[in-house]
Amino acid sequence: MGTPSASVALVPDDAGHDATAGNFYDVAVIGGGVVGHGIAWAARQSGRSVALIDDAPGSGASFAAAGMLAPVSELHYREEGLLELMLESSRLWPGFAAGLDGSAGNPGDPGDPGLPGGIRQTGTGTGYLTTSTLVIGADAADRRALTDLRTVQQSCGLTVEQLTVRGARGREPLLSPGISCAFDIRADHQVDPRRLLARIAALLAADSRYSAVPRRAAGLLWEGGRVSGVGLAGGGTVRAEETVVANGLGAAGLAGLPAGLNLPLRPVHGDILRLRVPAHLRPLLGSTVRGLVRGVPVYIVPREDGTVVIGATQREDAPADGGSAGDAVSAGGVYQLLRDAQQLLPAVAELELLEATARARPGTPDNAPLLGRVRDRAPDRDVGGLIIATGFFRHGILLTPAAAEICRQLLDGTADPRWAHFRPDRFSAGSPTTSPRDTRTQDTRPRPEHSKETV
Amino acid sequence: MGTPSASVALVPDDAGHDATAGNFYDVAVIGGGVVGHGIAWAARQSGRSVALIDDAPGSGASFAAAGMLAPVSELHYREEGLLELMLESSRLWPGFAAGLDGSAGNPGDPGDPGLPGGIRQTGTGTGYLTTSTLVIGADAADRRALTDLRTVQQSCGLTVEQLTVRGARGREPLLSPGISCAFDIRADHQVDPRRLLARIAALLAADSRYSAVPRRAAGLLWEGGRVSGVGLAGGGTVRAEETVVANGLGAAGLAGLPAGLNLPLRPVHGDILRLRVPAHLRPLLGSTVRGLVRGVPVYIVPREDGTVVIGATQREDAPADGGSAGDAVSAGGVYQLLRDAQQLLPAVAELELLEATARARPGTPDNAPLLGRVRDRAPDRDVGGLIIATGFFRHGILLTPAAAEICRQLLDGTADPRWAHFRPDRFSAGSPTTSPRDTRTQDTRPRPEHSKETV
Repeated sequence: MGTPSASVALVPDDAGHDATAGNFYDVAVIGGGVVGHGIAWAARQSGRSVALIDDAPGSGASFAAAGMLAPVSELHYREEGLLELMLESSRLWPGFAAGLDGSAGNPGDPGDPGLPGGIRQTGTGTGYLTTSTLVIGADAADRRALTDLRTVQQSCGLTVEQLTVRGARGREPLLSPGISCAFDIRADHQVDPRRLLARIAALLAADSRYSAVPRRAAGLLWEGGRVSGVGLAGGGTVRAEETVVANGLGAAGLAGLPAGLNLPLRPVHGDILRLRVPAHLRPLLGSTVRGLVRGVPVYIVPREDGTVVIGATQREDAPADGGSAGDAVSAGGVYQLLRDAQQLLPAVAELELLEATARARPGTPDNAPLLGRVRDRAPDRDVGGLIIATGFFRHGILLTPAAAEICRQLLDGTADPRWAHFRPDRFSAGSPTTSPRDTRTQDTRPRPEHSKETV
Repeated sequence: MGTPSASVALVPDDAGHDATAGNFYDVAVIGGGVVGHGIAWAARQSGRSVALIDDAPGSGASFAAAGMLAPVSELHYREEGLLELMLESSRLWPGFAAGLDGSAGNPGDPGDPGLPGGIRQTGTGTGYLTTSTLVIGADAADRRALTDLRTVQQSCGLTVEQLTVRGARGREPLLSPGISCAFDIRADHQVDPRRLLARIAALLAADSRYSAVPRRAAGLLWEGGRVSGVGLAGGGTVRAEETVVANGLGAAGLAGLPAGLNLPLRPVHGDILRLRVPAHLRPLLGSTVRGLVRGVPVYIVPREDGTVVIGATQREDAPADGGSAGDAVSAGGVYQLLRDAQQLLPAVAELELLEATARARPGTPDNAPLLGRVRDRAPDRDVGGLIIATGFFRHGILLTPAAAEICRQLLDGTADPRWAHFRPDRFSAGSPTTSPRDTRTQDTRPRPEHSKETV
């Protein structure tokens, strides 16, 4: 690979009128979701100067995400390859949250059931909570499916404790007496993605060696056979030693990707509800509830602020007319979420509906992320200056600390071989070359080395 | 009655700093919902100068209202006394809409089934449509209930045509084949309350003898034993020959109401959904559908712009905690609306949910409005300068032209005896007096007669 696959006419920036002009960063991050912000945060923690480019940060899939950190209950059949990365990221979460909170987390703490509602206030800045997760089945078929899944989970070395229905209702008195089974997963926690993103953004905003560039990235710049930064829609550039593509579904639409690089991202829509628990029903739940209701998943995530998040729907069908694209909330999806959530927790009917949101997540053919550098087959080396970090699908929030850590290692020139099978070029074929063919995307001006840091 | 029942400390306005200072209007209308705007419009049409006082016009029950103009299908048992007013207002609607549109309406036209979807474009400014209404039952018990209701409707001289299920589905192909019965009511039409309100407000805004006062009314001013205008929250006054209290549930909370006047308004909450019909499903419906599903009403109102409104829930229970009051959307209500609407029209599942809204409507003990002047028993005459127009409950949009016409007649000094039983003091008892007891609410400054019009 190598070489831009598409061209973009970039207007040279004008040093007199563009705030980004003349600046050179160690790292440019394209995409201001949770993953992009996490990578920017890690890059700054490693001493690098960082620019994050997004004209609407936090408005994509991160805006909808429920924030379950659930390597165990999110284990899917035939996705065991992803499990190691999910567990690694889960292990990184307490330190990641503590670094953002300025207070030490408590890795591996399963939550203190003695506190009211079982809610542990482990982090005020990000909403990170080590409350456990109850997996609940509605009918006998759901019980069989969840019992089978537990066998797979246990065979992977994961701890899933079966509870009696009475035991589950002792912990969560508002659960329906009609549920068929309950499992306790202490390792599956939660964070509030909107608070998390706001927290990282606030910390970075106070940092003089960080720039938030409120513009849309149009494409990659190339210079001397390597990526040299980002061209902005409407003109202007951000030049950088390394560019990280972390803009979710938007990644595939960037101009100047290496020729032959195929980023097979597909939108997977999800509806999600935010509801307010009236005072007389608080706490509604002390644990996150993940249910299977007649074979259909639904989750109910209680927040510290007295709200709950209900979600689970996945729609892979493209909207029939393009008018509203991925942000259209499906009436049938909302109906199904409320129906199934009420079946597990009848009090859901008494909640106040605050918000119904839909967003598309970036799915990949194997449901694993596209994460790493891009191989250039002739010469056989990685494309310089470029890291891809997208395709996190349902796991973007959970995988943020791991993605941030992996990117930091790649910036350092090291790469953990455990993650090699997530390389972003694994679905690509072609006849690559490193020499830029289209000079319109080249940035040929002298690089202002004076503002560049040693990394 | 007479005499303020409560006092409010009104800061005298400062002619140098208050836009309303020194102004005197023929009519002050408290409340900027559809009813208040309709009354203001009629008062201006009669040549009177008008001030409309509301700090958030159009944000109350009018914001949620579906806009069904349905005297026939809204007929309830033991509410036959209201029917005459509803029919009168229905007769006034075409002229009222035409006056706002600047184009002649076509009273009594049942809609042209030859147009696509049966939608008649009778008014572009207000969304007034003379499409008919289909009443649909889901199961056998619903069929019996609707058949019984039809007997009552017919005994009142109303036309309700029974259709076969096949006939109904011929007209509305997306209706479920599982419905139990269908009735066509050609006299029940619709308007878009938000467009209607915006249309009236825009016409009035261009009128030099109209003032929109973006302030909250605190109470009534009294002078010489009659109401002389409105005191504003935070200070200032609007003085007027006649004051119309049309602020819905807020009416009972006004200071300075006549002593002994009891306005027994109760909030009746309703959830309402607005959805977008994807292009491949348009037109979803050509008629408004009012259903009874296992005894529970639901309506689906198709708009010209490709959206539909789904509503029907009524909750009389006050929210358990006061946090969100009447604007809290009930998750159970939304679930029930989507469930029941899908039972009649399965394609509802494929719609895009745009908005879920809840508002409280002003209910009264007999579900009829509080409309007219207030009787002062000693001396036996009406309180001067005061008209009450609230308590329209589910019928505020339908009854707007009638309320406006009745108010105009009262301003003219005439009163149609047919509407005497809607007098706002019918639930009141007490020992009235006309002499103001509390001088703090008096406006004792000389009235600037120069700005007053002859009416």
